[in-house]
Amino acid sequence: MAKKKSTTKKSSRRTAGSARDAAASKKERDKVTRKKIEQLAGEVVQASLKMRDPFVDIPTRTVSNTSYNKKKRILEMGDATQRRNLFNTGQAKKFMQTLLLAKGCRDLIDRGKTSSLRGMFYAGLHTIEGTKEKTFNDQSESDVILEDLEVALDSLREELHVFAKKRGAMVGNITLIDSGDEIDCRRMGSGGYAIPSITEPNVIQFKKCEADFVLHVEKDTVWQRFNEDKFWQKHNCILTEGSGQPPRGVRRLLARLNRELGLPVYCLLDCDPWGHYIYSVIKQGSISLAFESQRMAVPDAKFIGIRAMDYERCELSDDVKIELNDRDITRAKQIMNYPWFADKKPWQKEIKRMLSNGFKMEVESLITKDISYVTETYVPERLTQMDLLD
Amino acid sequence: MAKKKSTTKKSSRRTAGSARDAAASKKERDKVTRKKIEQLAGEVVQASLKMRDPFVDIPTRTVSNTSYNKKKRILEMGDATQRRNLFNTGQAKKFMQTLLLAKGCRDLIDRGKTSSLRGMFYAGLHTIEGTKEKTFNDQSESDVILEDLEVALDSLREELHVFAKKRGAMVGNITLIDSGDEIDCRRMGSGGYAIPSITEPNVIQFKKCEADFVLHVEKDTVWQRFNEDKFWQKHNCILTEGSGQPPRGVRRLLARLNRELGLPVYCLLDCDPWGHYIYSVIKQGSISLAFESQRMAVPDAKFIGIRAMDYERCELSDDVKIELNDRDITRAKQIMNYPWFADKKPWQKEIKRMLSNGFKMEVESLITKDISYVTETYVPERLTQMDLLD
Repeated sequence: MAKKKSTTKKSSRRTAGSARDAAASKKERDKVTRKKIEQLAGEVVQASLKMRDPFVDIPTRTVSNTSYNKKKRILEMGDATQRRNLFNTGQAKKFMQTLLLAKGCRDLIDRGKTSSLRGMFYAGLHTIEGTKEKTFNDQSESDVILEDLEVALDSLREELHVFAKKRGAMVGNITLIDSGDEIDCRRMGSGGYAIPSITEPNVIQFKKCEADFVLHVEKDTVWQRFNEDKFWQKHNCILTEGSGQPPRGVRRLLARLNRELGLPVYCLLDCDPWGHYIYSVIKQGSISLAFESQRMAVPDAKFIGIRAMDYERCELSDDVKIELNDRDITRAKQIMNYPWFADKKPWQKEIKRMLSNGFKMEVESLITKDISYVTETYVPERLTQMDLLD
Repeated sequence: MAKKKSTTKKSSRRTAGSARDAAASKKERDKVTRKKIEQLAGEVVQASLKMRDPFVDIPTRTVSNTSYNKKKRILEMGDATQRRNLFNTGQAKKFMQTLLLAKGCRDLIDRGKTSSLRGMFYAGLHTIEGTKEKTFNDQSESDVILEDLEVALDSLREELHVFAKKRGAMVGNITLIDSGDEIDCRRMGSGGYAIPSITEPNVIQFKKCEADFVLHVEKDTVWQRFNEDKFWQKHNCILTEGSGQPPRGVRRLLARLNRELGLPVYCLLDCDPWGHYIYSVIKQGSISLAFESQRMAVPDAKFIGIRAMDYERCELSDDVKIELNDRDITRAKQIMNYPWFADKKPWQKEIKRMLSNGFKMEVESLITKDISYVTETYVPERLTQMDLLD
């Protein structure tokens, strides 16, 4: 059985927020975002009227401008910015693209609609009059500018009404409201509730939650095993998956479940550099999108496995071993040196052990013991012993 | 507005099927599948006892053993089989793998559990005693054997309790029962109901359906636009997506919605060889898995767009054009020659027009007109005019 946490009662209380509140807060948030966009444009207009070279300042999204905030335990973006001038042949195109997409976002807000990254690319795409020059050569150009806009406006992509691809599913002891519809995650069959791209409070409100914790697993196939074995009923939890690296919608939802409902988040991931990296992103945020860590990171998240010692601890056969290749080894060493792993002895030990093992292991490899070993033995044992990596 | 079909009333009636019926049919089906597996193994035992070389016969899954059944309008597998002997050094390993996975499937059936393809690989994996030889070198070996088993036993993968990766979502005017849980697809918020990997009648029963048709779109981002614009409410339909090539769970669900509820299935896909191929698989089945067409194909499915003529018909700008590359051109010509496209003049015209255009177009490119052009103008116009490709 999972350890009962003192958060249980608190979490059942700290729920609700009516649909009307959500609509009001959405309207309020849209107003703020709209104002930010207008301010950006307003400065350009001001400069133009004063016959000065218009510019926009974009915070720099590079490793060198990213730092680990030890107190908050999240990745943060520094203060460095990059100026984008109109009267500079090397910057004029990006300047134009920035304003074009800012306008696109304002239009979305005004119409109360959302768009995909691909949609934003098309919406901003046109051939500049009198030339054969297109506003964007391909979507990778507009994607980068949208990230620039997020940081420049200090608004999440979701606040700009732009969404990423949807991935991930959820079941468990929670009822939520999604766009006015009540979703009882206890009664979602074998398929589950598809976690939307935007999981901000204006879209999703928590109504009733009795769960004690969230178990987040890496893959949908593993999730399916847990759902079929009714793990979330037996252990009173919420079960999520992110189909690999969890998309922003899933990360934001995990962060909200943790902060607003006080639910611990336990991650069941592969014993390989990719699994460790996923954990790192869930917990501290990603380097390229450090500006979003504040809302998306879950510094309290814990790693429940697979552990390098499991080969011996669980008496697994040699068949589960997948040899580490050179890239894995390089990647593992990089991850070991991340500041948030570097000062944690258990993690240093964990990664060193994987390296000395010389092999990685997937969650699925526990099937060699028994199909339900992972749901009936492995995770329950870790929960009873609270045997987790921080 | 969508044309009201005479199927509407019929479909609301032809629903239900209690959870108890489902459980009983599941048990019955499991019994049948189990018997087939035992028969396969029994023949091996019989041959051994008679001191003969044991073998299994596996139907051949190649293009040459696939034919298009014009009457049924689906792809079918021919009668050719391939014998797999134990006492043949070239076949012994595959023979052993076949029996090993057949045993794995029987175990799943006996325990009432399901497993992923990856799980089956691990479940069958071990080092053969006294050697360093593994039963499988990698998952690709076990995946192929599982497909062999499907055809050899004439049982769908789902009946063998094995599932593929889950993808795809659904919303709309239908209530269904998934594993005993009632799912009201009218109240699934922005995320929708995640379509499970197994959508057989023992898992999913249709309870109440007022929808007039199914609109299936290629991508989740397009699906999101339709859901946000409440298209399925305004046009009384069901909205599905398969995240590209729809997985088996989605295809089987579309087939069941079409056959059991009499709902027409309209597909909104890109104007490119990939979009045409997706349509072909939904409608006639796939070549490599022709044995499943009987249950998964939707010969009545219709193609609602994007059409090659849309560049002119919808007065799109040059920005939507994506040049066809050599691979696209080769692929388009292959698809034109598929027997089920070869005798359809409108499709010959469609693909020729795309080739003479020299460019492809994505559904998202309609955003260059307006963000909701596709939901408010494009699809409604096609539905009113019943302007569809067969």
